[in-house]
Amino acid sequence: MRKKIIVIGGSAAGPKAAAKARRMDEFAEVTLFQKGADLSMASCGYPYFVGGFFDDRNKLLCTPTGVVRDPNFYWDAKEIVAKVNTEVTRINKQDKTVEFTDVVTGEKGTQEYDKLIIATGAKANLPPVKGVGLKGISTLQSMQDADYLRKIRDEGKVKKAVVVGGGLIGIETVEALHLAGIELTMVELLPQLLTFLDWKMAKLVENYLKTKANVITKNGVSEFLGKDGKLVGVKLQNGTELPCELAVIAIGVKPNIDLARDAGIKIGEMGGIVVDKYMQTSDEDIYAAGDCCEINNIITGKNVLAPYGDLANLEGRVAGENVIAGNKVTFPGTIQTGVCKLFDYGIGITGLSETKAKEAGFDFVKVVNASPDKPGFMDGKLLVTKLLADSKTGKILGAQCLGPGDVSKQLAIWATAIKGKLTVEDMVNADLPYAPPFSLAIDHSVASAHILQNKMKGVFTGISCMDVKEKLDAGADMYLLDVRGADEYEETRLGIGETLIPLGVLRKRLNELPKDKEKEIVAFCKISLRGYEAAVMLKAHGYTNVKVLEGGIMAWPFEKEK
Amino acid sequence: MRKKIIVIGGSAAGPKAAAKARRMDEFAEVTLFQKGADLSMASCGYPYFVGGFFDDRNKLLCTPTGVVRDPNFYWDAKEIVAKVNTEVTRINKQDKTVEFTDVVTGEKGTQEYDKLIIATGAKANLPPVKGVGLKGISTLQSMQDADYLRKIRDEGKVKKAVVVGGGLIGIETVEALHLAGIELTMVELLPQLLTFLDWKMAKLVENYLKTKANVITKNGVSEFLGKDGKLVGVKLQNGTELPCELAVIAIGVKPNIDLARDAGIKIGEMGGIVVDKYMQTSDEDIYAAGDCCEINNIITGKNVLAPYGDLANLEGRVAGENVIAGNKVTFPGTIQTGVCKLFDYGIGITGLSETKAKEAGFDFVKVVNASPDKPGFMDGKLLVTKLLADSKTGKILGAQCLGPGDVSKQLAIWATAIKGKLTVEDMVNADLPYAPPFSLAIDHSVASAHILQNKMKGVFTGISCMDVKEKLDAGADMYLLDVRGADEYEETRLGIGETLIPLGVLRKRLNELPKDKEKEIVAFCKISLRGYEAAVMLKAHGYTNVKVLEGGIMAWPFEKEK
Ligand SMILES: Cc1cc2nc3c(=O)[nH]c(=O)nc-3n(C[C@H](O)[C@H](O)[C@H](O)COP(=O)(O)OP(=O)(O)OC[C@H]3O[C@@H](n4cnc5c(N)ncnc54)[C@H](O)[C@@H]3O)c2cc1C
Ligand SMILES: Cc1cc2nc3c(=O)[nH]c(=O)nc-3n(C[C@H](O)[C@H](O)[C@H](O)COP(=O)(O)OP(=O)(O)OC[C@H]3O[C@@H](n4cnc5c(N)ncnc54)[C@H](O)[C@@H]3O)c2cc1C
Ligand SMILES: CC(C)(COP(=O)(O)OP(=O)(O)OC[C@H]1O[C@@H](n2cnc3c(N)ncnc32)[C@H](O)[C@@H]1OP(=O)(O)O)[C@@H](O)C(=O)NCCC(=O)NCCS
Ligand SMILES: CC(C)(COP(=O)(O)OP(=O)(O)OC[C@H]1O[C@@H](n2cnc3c(N)ncnc32)[C@H](O)[C@@H]1OP(=O)(O)O)[C@@H](O)C(=O)NCCC(=O)NCCS
Ligand SMILES: [Ca+2]
Ligand SMILES: [Ca+2]
Repeated sequence: MRKKIIVIGGSAAGPKAAAKARRMDEFAEVTLFQKGADLSMASCGYPYFVGGFFDDRNKLLCTPTGVVRDPNFYWDAKEIVAKVNTEVTRINKQDKTVEFTDVVTGEKGTQEYDKLIIATGAKANLPPVKGVGLKGISTLQSMQDADYLRKIRDEGKVKKAVVVGGGLIGIETVEALHLAGIELTMVELLPQLLTFLDWKMAKLVENYLKTKANVITKNGVSEFLGKDGKLVGVKLQNGTELPCELAVIAIGVKPNIDLARDAGIKIGEMGGIVVDKYMQTSDEDIYAAGDCCEINNIITGKNVLAPYGDLANLEGRVAGENVIAGNKVTFPGTIQTGVCKLFDYGIGITGLSETKAKEAGFDFVKVVNASPDKPGFMDGKLLVTKLLADSKTGKILGAQCLGPGDVSKQLAIWATAIKGKLTVEDMVNADLPYAPPFSLAIDHSVASAHILQNKMKGVFTGISCMDVKEKLDAGADMYLLDVRGADEYEETRLGIGETLIPLGVLRKRLNELPKDKEKEIVAFCKISLRGYEAAVMLKAHGYTNVKVLEGGIMAWPFEKEK
Repeated sequence: MRKKIIVIGGSAAGPKAAAKARRMDEFAEVTLFQKGADLSMASCGYPYFVGGFFDDRNKLLCTPTGVVRDPNFYWDAKEIVAKVNTEVTRINKQDKTVEFTDVVTGEKGTQEYDKLIIATGAKANLPPVKGVGLKGISTLQSMQDADYLRKIRDEGKVKKAVVVGGGLIGIETVEALHLAGIELTMVELLPQLLTFLDWKMAKLVENYLKTKANVITKNGVSEFLGKDGKLVGVKLQNGTELPCELAVIAIGVKPNIDLARDAGIKIGEMGGIVVDKYMQTSDEDIYAAGDCCEINNIITGKNVLAPYGDLANLEGRVAGENVIAGNKVTFPGTIQTGVCKLFDYGIGITGLSETKAKEAGFDFVKVVNASPDKPGFMDGKLLVTKLLADSKTGKILGAQCLGPGDVSKQLAIWATAIKGKLTVEDMVNADLPYAPPFSLAIDHSVASAHILQNKMKGVFTGISCMDVKEKLDAGADMYLLDVRGADEYEETRLGIGETLIPLGVLRKRLNELPKDKEKEIVAFCKISLRGYEAAVMLKAHGYTNVKVLEGGIMAWPFEKEK
């Protein structure tokens, strides 16, 4: 008897599971139900289609050799019956069937399964405000959304748009629409963009984004303003009205769990389908994979929503194998590694942010390293990394990285380090691939480990920009010591009451420092490498309260004098 | 009493050790002896200066903010006495002094140390053949060499050059001189370039290099031909004469150990100074770091020469700390990670090649994965990875990677995975940073792990290009099955007697396959993804001897019909 496998959902996790099930069993009957018209959509590519990185929408739907993954492809190449425009409306656990409806013809049907895989993904959240149904308001969640926004680009008529929500998709949408020649305003309810980052890192993103678009934080949408059913503006909670012809809503996604919940399958606290390490749900014949699930965060042990395309594929692969072979393979969970591009910046995180590490009760040390990815003579570009490690074990807990430099490599290194349970000490002498076109002799990641090692040893006492700013605002009496060259000082400076004494003359000019050797001194330079050297020297000369401004001027997120 | 620290060698390991010693002890007397005129040379950048990536030679010698690291800098910023043009001629272990000579004035001196660090680096090997002293013959090992070759670029007179030696520096030199508009021939004595790679991977490099330069392997230089003391040609061992006005010799480096050996310090079997994990030599007051040492290969436990700039810095940092603090920090050794750029290709390795794994007695599994670094719609570029893992534990042993794709990220991932002792199973579900501008949803590294996992499970039975070629040459009776589309077949094909049956029609045309179900079938496509799917299917249909051509057509290093 041929095994009957049904997969619900035809984007990433579903097709992957179906394809893997087929490879595991050439003779199983595999059916894939997909509500929409398309299959195998590379959703993550929508912003790049909208932004004009390429023009052929089929590239989002096809194999690397250019064959569109339509039902014919699925049948011919994989002998999978892919039913598009077909919504599964009910799962009957008892008799192991699903009910479905052809959304075009309205025809209904029922089909039996031995094993079922739910891969229904997630849907975009919408704000519950007036006017949200107006023409000119969209999300960027489906192929249809992508087509709609791409058409706006091609027509070139829209002049002003508002993107609601400063998350990953919102950020990518701003880039895409900016590249379409549209004037953008991003509106975010929370005090920062990209909430997976810590505030200061997010602030650096915001500062950069402001060179391309208007950014409004701590302000939500109270109403979409319309005329003749068409959007004409967005009204904010503080009363401001932003005239625009287009608004894209990107305020996060929610797992599609109605089917599962109605069938009595267990839903978790995070709102996703609960699965074990085999991707098996509370029903032993039903598996789930992708954005519809909640999965284990490997570091905290807590369930999280991790709606990422790579994980959807990996989870689908595990589910696809297990429905055929029994529970043979496992999915270990996530460290919530994510990255996005914003014009010339890469931005991302792996593991825990400071906020998340605190929530999870970790006792941690952290550092910010601002330094280039490559030598100056190879046109090195700035990277800013915030690295967290467990105070006791030194185990890496998380890394945030952003800037015009090679961010994705840095994150890949840290993601692999976390996977390997590596410590700061391990990374201090990591043997990475070095050549000038690719990195510094001491790679940015290794330098970050060096600085954090120094901190853990008490050689480097850091102070964050935020703490300095707070203290300054509270009128604290600190001695701020800029140890750069005079030329650098003329070019740019913080202007927060600092004294300039270049590192090269500092030993000769120690007498100019505060007489009170216990006074708080904050040393810095462009990236705080020389700031660190100065601090080490001053400590040796008896100053007892010397700190280094972490990340230096390059990581300063506030206004500068110059 | 101030501690007296002497460092011999002023390029990478030496300055790093001196600088670290200073940070460890503000009051130590630190002296750096450097034979040449320059300090802190970024040797790894020489090829890019010669190749015209930048014009200012001082960029090779300066800090990120543009200050040349000359003796003034060392004194002002670090209170290190840097004696340039000063060769240390003798180490007297007993009375703990060094003797030195000013190479310009001939003046001699003696200086005491409490702790000594030897960082004398390595020197270029020269072939013992006639004419090697002719004008027009150079190495690319010193700043002077770089200046010499750069002048040749700027003058634009040299038309033809020969690079002797196909190692890392030879490869980079070919690129540099090619960019200078010179017609290049590379000559390599061994049967392959880049001997740290396995033959087939090196062959792919050779094929690519041949699009830019002439490449001659298995042929050494027998004589440099001169006229009036000037090079006019290179004569090879097979008698061929290559007319040229310039020859660059890059046949490897040898540790500078004369000083150490003469002082009775232990030299190892590999020809480098022997150090323990503290970078301490056989004399407890003498440490060594950088290219002059041999160090532990972490995977094999054997000593190796690893003349890499990143390691020189890391080793120097350890030595610099230990001479002050006692043996507090350790250097764990190397996995011999290296990378280089060759025009649009990145090329490198981390861990063991197949050759080295065999030598070390490992029982390993391996796979070749040829696939893009990013989606096609984001202009993804090809990567070819050869991955090795221990047969029993699945622990990653090594990865070679090359191609126009993002090689350095792949190597960084594998280097970190090796450091973390990760297995194939671990990497199968690695949570890496994914977004279309940076990678595929299933990153190339993760895909490599998937394929190797499949091999280990016996789902994927691979056969290497070399084995297929050998069998074909020996007249073996195999059924070669190309499962690509007809259009792809028309564009390019191996032409080794294969039959084309596209994957999408294979199930319908099973009757065209050999009747003998035990016959050897080798399935392939462009990268052997579809080849794998075909093989899985055929096995299910009873074919017992089905293999997949690893890496597919993209990894085929031999001639193709088309
Ligand atoms: C604009 C955008 C950019 C993104 N960028 C990235 C990125 O850079 N990196 C990253 O890792 N992730 C990114 N993501 C997230 C990634 O696309 C998702 O994680 C991934 O698509 C999830 O796959 P899935 O198969 O679980 O769910 P989905 O892609 O949501 O697919 C589920 C499918 O199931 C169908 N379905 C639902 N219910 C039913 C039903 N009852 N019957 C039949 N069919 C049903 C839906 O119509 C849908 O097509 C991005 C997403 C978007 C929208
Ligand atoms: C062209 C080129 C490209 C390279 N590319 C890369 C790359 O991409 N990646 C990579 O990792 N590595 C690369 N390397 C290797 C890297 O440059 C070396 O590993 C590194 O420079 C070693 O540093 P070191 O300080 O140990 O030795 P060296 O750089 O050799 O310096 C030793 C110094 O000691 C001096 N000295 C020797 N004896 C005495 C004495 N008796 N008295 C006083 N001074 C003395 C020498 O004059 C020399 O300046 C490259 C090297 C070259 C030449
Ligand atoms: C592609 C898709 C249909 C899955 O189908 P699939 O048949 O598993 O396709 P893949 O290309 O991923 O891999 C096929 C097999 O070839 C293997 N493979 C990949 N490259 C290979 C190579 N160079 N040589 C040999 N085998 C290879 C894979 O490991 C996989 O086998 P396994 O899962 O049994 O290990 C599904 O993931 C999909 O629709 N994706 C598009 C949408 C998407 O991912 N969206 C979210 C991100 S934008
Ligand atoms: C640069 C060189 C002089 C070493 O001197 P150094 O003072 O150790 O200089 P570095 O810039 O590496 O680092 C200085 C210190 O600042 C720290 N640091 C680096 N970036 C920092 C940042 N953003 N914030 C705070 N500290 C930082 C480092 O960790 C290091 O301290 P530590 O070793 O005590 O941990 C020596 O390596 C050299 O001459 N290099 C050039 C030649 C070379 O490397 N050639 C081979 C490759 S081409
Ligand atoms: Ca991820
Ligand atoms: Ca290395």
